[in-house]
Amino acid sequence: MSGEVFLREICEQPEALRRLLGQEQAFAAAAEALARKQPTTVRLVGHGTSDNAASYGVYAFGLLPGWTALRDSISLTVYYDAAIDLSTSAVVALSQSGRTPDVVEYVSRARAGGALTIALTNDPHSELGEAAELVLPLSAGPELAVAATKTYLNELAGLALLAAGAVGRGAETADGLRRVASLLDEALPELERAVAPLAAAFAFVGRMFVIGRGIEFATAREIALKLTETCRVAAEPLTATDLVHGPVAALDPLFPVWAIASPDETLPAVVEAAARARDAGAALVASGSAERQIEGAAYRLPVPNPADRLLTPLLSVVPGQLFAGSLAQVKGLDADSPERLTKVTLAR
Amino acid sequence: MSGEVFLREICEQPEALRRLLGQEQAFAAAAEALARKQPTTVRLVGHGTSDNAASYGVYAFGLLPGWTALRDSISLTVYYDAAIDLSTSAVVALSQSGRTPDVVEYVSRARAGGALTIALTNDPHSELGEAAELVLPLSAGPELAVAATKTYLNELAGLALLAAGAVGRGAETADGLRRVASLLDEALPELERAVAPLAAAFAFVGRMFVIGRGIEFATAREIALKLTETCRVAAEPLTATDLVHGPVAALDPLFPVWAIASPDETLPAVVEAAARARDAGAALVASGSAERQIEGAAYRLPVPNPADRLLTPLLSVVPGQLFAGSLAQVKGLDADSPERLTKVTLAR
Repeated sequence: MSGEVFLREICEQPEALRRLLGQEQAFAAAAEALARKQPTTVRLVGHGTSDNAASYGVYAFGLLPGWTALRDSISLTVYYDAAIDLSTSAVVALSQSGRTPDVVEYVSRARAGGALTIALTNDPHSELGEAAELVLPLSAGPELAVAATKTYLNELAGLALLAAGAVGRGAETADGLRRVASLLDEALPELERAVAPLAAAFAFVGRMFVIGRGIEFATAREIALKLTETCRVAAEPLTATDLVHGPVAALDPLFPVWAIASPDETLPAVVEAAARARDAGAALVASGSAERQIEGAAYRLPVPNPADRLLTPLLSVVPGQLFAGSLAQVKGLDADSPERLTKVTLAR
Repeated sequence: MSGEVFLREICEQPEALRRLLGQEQAFAAAAEALARKQPTTVRLVGHGTSDNAASYGVYAFGLLPGWTALRDSISLTVYYDAAIDLSTSAVVALSQSGRTPDVVEYVSRARAGGALTIALTNDPHSELGEAAELVLPLSAGPELAVAATKTYLNELAGLALLAAGAVGRGAETADGLRRVASLLDEALPELERAVAPLAAAFAFVGRMFVIGRGIEFATAREIALKLTETCRVAAEPLTATDLVHGPVAALDPLFPVWAIASPDETLPAVVEAAARARDAGAALVASGSAERQIEGAAYRLPVPNPADRLLTPLLSVVPGQLFAGSLAQVKGLDADSPERLTKVTLAR
């Protein structure tokens, strides 16, 4: 049946996460190298799902070692050959295949420029693995569906291990990730049931906004990407605040908004933006472990709350993945192999 | 007539640009302060249109002084109170009104943390003007339409002056901006005529992607925002490369793509992505001074090519602004005052 590989891989995520934790020592060693480097800047590079994981990295490095991390412009270095000093930087490059051409080129240049370069990839023997000084296996296992799921979760986990390890909290975070795997095991069957009626209701939705803020902006981006690529919905991710700085004007009852609510300091901004979307007549989907704080949501997809708040995005993304799989099925689309996409994107 | 203020303000942009150039000395002094600081990081903050201008700032600072500039996470500092060392940073805060609460709060904290803080705002006496160490008037003049146009162009110009001034090229860039104002004066009447048939054809378009790369990614973001807020089109900006990393799967003949083509090193990536969009059946709009490089475009909106390549985005955005105004009129929407938006957004 079409879409069953995508769904199976979503359900394999706890197992993939445990496999990554088998590499805990390799991540700890890389984190020590980062701590020795004390980079002025952590430069995260990747495309698509990997770039969404990079959004999480900005917060993981900002909140744990207190480092400035950014999703770097690949164009500046690779196309414009800008004279930026990279010698005090660390680079964390993310790529499922390790074959994304401009990411490989970026890492080669950054390494030549004196940056500490670290690759996170499922294929340590790839070109990216060759280009980087340190290579960490994502260990997601074979990912056969074109739209990534296991890779995303393991990228988040890898970034959390690196950021925590840089301040001597790697083991604690690894324990937290083990608990996340167990929570996911428990939550998956119920979540799979919960998305089905929602998918039926969304069969003819053409456009959506997905909002989150802070560490959950990565989740908003990844859920929007899954909906766009597997369900052909024009789903745009926005920070809660950016929604009210313009796009809220486009909303109406045919233009639903998905709000990701986690219990942290950014929650009031998400609650407020969701209320404005509802006032515009938009149907609201509320997910996350603080979804109850979103008033008037038409649909709710709660997830468990992990003890370590930095790890909430690993759980928050799963309802979106499952919903995308279910909606693709309702629409007769093949989530395993969306039109015009290939597993390895070699485009510039 | 509704929408006439928006249109008038688009046409006032050359005049607004010349008004900003009357402040050339103030920008030169701030650029010298930046050069003395030699920041490890330039942190750009703003929301909506101002955040789109910040995307341009990443390239202006990266290409001219070779500094690492980023659109910083406001959440990390303002909501999460992350322990990031800001003492070696410069902050450039962008806000039309100078009253965006979390931007003001961010600047206060960054200044207390030792950053050199610079505000670009139309109201130097605003809270933001009070909070920042150096205040530069955007001088756009009264902007009465809710959707910003003059402010955006002057923000780009201000960022170009700061980045160029930091390497002693401020006067040269000011001359370039004067030429841009003249080129715009000449191009506006023809562009105004050219967008009308395009707007008629797009009356029932519900969703679009707008693609650009490098310095033109800011243009893609700003055109998409204008279309979303004034025309209620779900227009998502994507880098040319991100389009092919997933979203291309959503395209069909009802889902047009607008490609911004400027003659620089990133053009091949845009040309390639546009070809993939066309293969998916999407109607293509090609704009920019290299629009002829986009094969098979259904609609073309060329703009003049300024001598200084870093200034192309000031011209590239104008067809999008005019098209948004024209399309809003065709759809019977009031571009001067979109529903649910106010000129000053005080939301978190």
